[in-house]
Amino acid sequence: MAKKVLIVYAHQSSGSFNAAAKNTAVEVLTAQGFTVEVSDLYAMGFKASATAEDIKGEVMNAENFCYMKETKLAWEQGKLSDDITKEQSKLTEADLVIFQFPMYWFGVPAILKGWIDRVLTNGFAFSQEKRYSQGIFKDKKAMLSFTTGSLESMFSPTGINGDMHVTLWPLQNGILHYCGFQVLTPWIFWAPASAAAEDRKSMLESWSTRLQGLLEEKPLSFIPLDCFDEKTFQLKPNVYERHASKTFGVTVGIYLNKPLPPHSQKKAGY
Amino acid sequence: MAKKVLIVYAHQSSGSFNAAAKNTAVEVLTAQGFTVEVSDLYAMGFKASATAEDIKGEVMNAENFCYMKETKLAWEQGKLSDDITKEQSKLTEADLVIFQFPMYWFGVPAILKGWIDRVLTNGFAFSQEKRYSQGIFKDKKAMLSFTTGSLESMFSPTGINGDMHVTLWPLQNGILHYCGFQVLTPWIFWAPASAAAEDRKSMLESWSTRLQGLLEEKPLSFIPLDCFDEKTFQLKPNVYERHASKTFGVTVGIYLNKPLPPHSQKKAGY
Repeated sequence: MAKKVLIVYAHQSSGSFNAAAKNTAVEVLTAQGFTVEVSDLYAMGFKASATAEDIKGEVMNAENFCYMKETKLAWEQGKLSDDITKEQSKLTEADLVIFQFPMYWFGVPAILKGWIDRVLTNGFAFSQEKRYSQGIFKDKKAMLSFTTGSLESMFSPTGINGDMHVTLWPLQNGILHYCGFQVLTPWIFWAPASAAAEDRKSMLESWSTRLQGLLEEKPLSFIPLDCFDEKTFQLKPNVYERHASKTFGVTVGIYLNKPLPPHSQKKAGY
Repeated sequence: MAKKVLIVYAHQSSGSFNAAAKNTAVEVLTAQGFTVEVSDLYAMGFKASATAEDIKGEVMNAENFCYMKETKLAWEQGKLSDDITKEQSKLTEADLVIFQFPMYWFGVPAILKGWIDRVLTNGFAFSQEKRYSQGIFKDKKAMLSFTTGSLESMFSPTGINGDMHVTLWPLQNGILHYCGFQVLTPWIFWAPASAAAEDRKSMLESWSTRLQGLLEEKPLSFIPLDCFDEKTFQLKPNVYERHASKTFGVTVGIYLNKPLPPHSQKKAGY
């Protein structure tokens, strides 16, 4: 059966560079025989805010409403709102998820954060036992593809915005890897709005080339869940020992008081 | 004249721990003579998604709509939607802004990201010249106050979620400091939902104590804008030289290939 790709796309305009990037992905992946589905969040008028309306019928505790607890129960009982259930079905079917968006304020636009907050329900997307390398989506791949306003040099460890690896960590580790996804190297379109038309065209051509081998790529490295103590959630002593003589820490967030590994959030195999 | 505090509050329920934290801030700060305003985002039904509806009348380029460019122009022409203008007025008045929220997916809830995306308009909140230490809000203070689901140890450099300093960097540097805010030490309520009632009470008491001296606190340290070259946006050579003999990098994102400074996003004076 054909492998399935879900593109979660967050730009307002069909004439935008992000739209062109999304269209390139649809064309290249379809031509390769994949079944491609697009969730065009603005066109769908996707609801961004996590509210009690996301649950059909009565909530469990209206006085002290806890979104995570309420939606976990609603998911178990089949009472999540239809828009959430529909996105969850797409996600269940997908072998690869591509998030295509313009970076807003060092993160994803609110409408895409809303998709993350509302669709990745406790129980459906993660549980205390099933997360990180043992996560529910560990047989799926996911990647970020986004545009920036800043040039690449500005997002370096000596640039004004600081290292892009740090900015990517909460997104790639805290959301994608948390749910178990194998995280593919992100694709960053650096400042296309400031680029000449021919450079923008060339960026899309490189993207098209990258897309052709996407599902065979090795994912980024994260620390396997069994390296952490089951009770304290701290790295086990043998992991420290293994890394004692190494120059760099293991990942951006779990760096063992060593310098950050220079490629962990942008290159596979580090 | 009394100093003004704006609390941007993002929780669905008035019975929640976040509501109690917000109420504590209102009480303590009001008792100290501050004028306190609360933007209760869920109660306001605050629109989270950045769309063309945020601009009154015709947009500049409907074919290739760029939210940042369109809203910059709309701000200049007084054509931003009323809900945005109202929040901007509150922000203009405020000496201190407190963001009170539950951490969702290593970041702010979508409704709060929507406030950030929509209210911090180009021109109103920043420009290429006026950002970071020269930012438009450099005479204002801002801080994050939030609850987590995880324990503090899980958000350490050896814990399963990685260092909280890394997770805070995009928010505190990329949003607050980018607009010039003096960023106060964040207040983190670690896993109140898993805590005993008396511990939750004690967390609120500590918060109440902290609030009493808030406006006299020294802010977190970031690198002044004039340490960067005006054209390349890279650190100037003299800054490297000054830090050559130091053990740690300067900030989480701008670390000069040294180990991350251990306190930069959570303690003042580092």
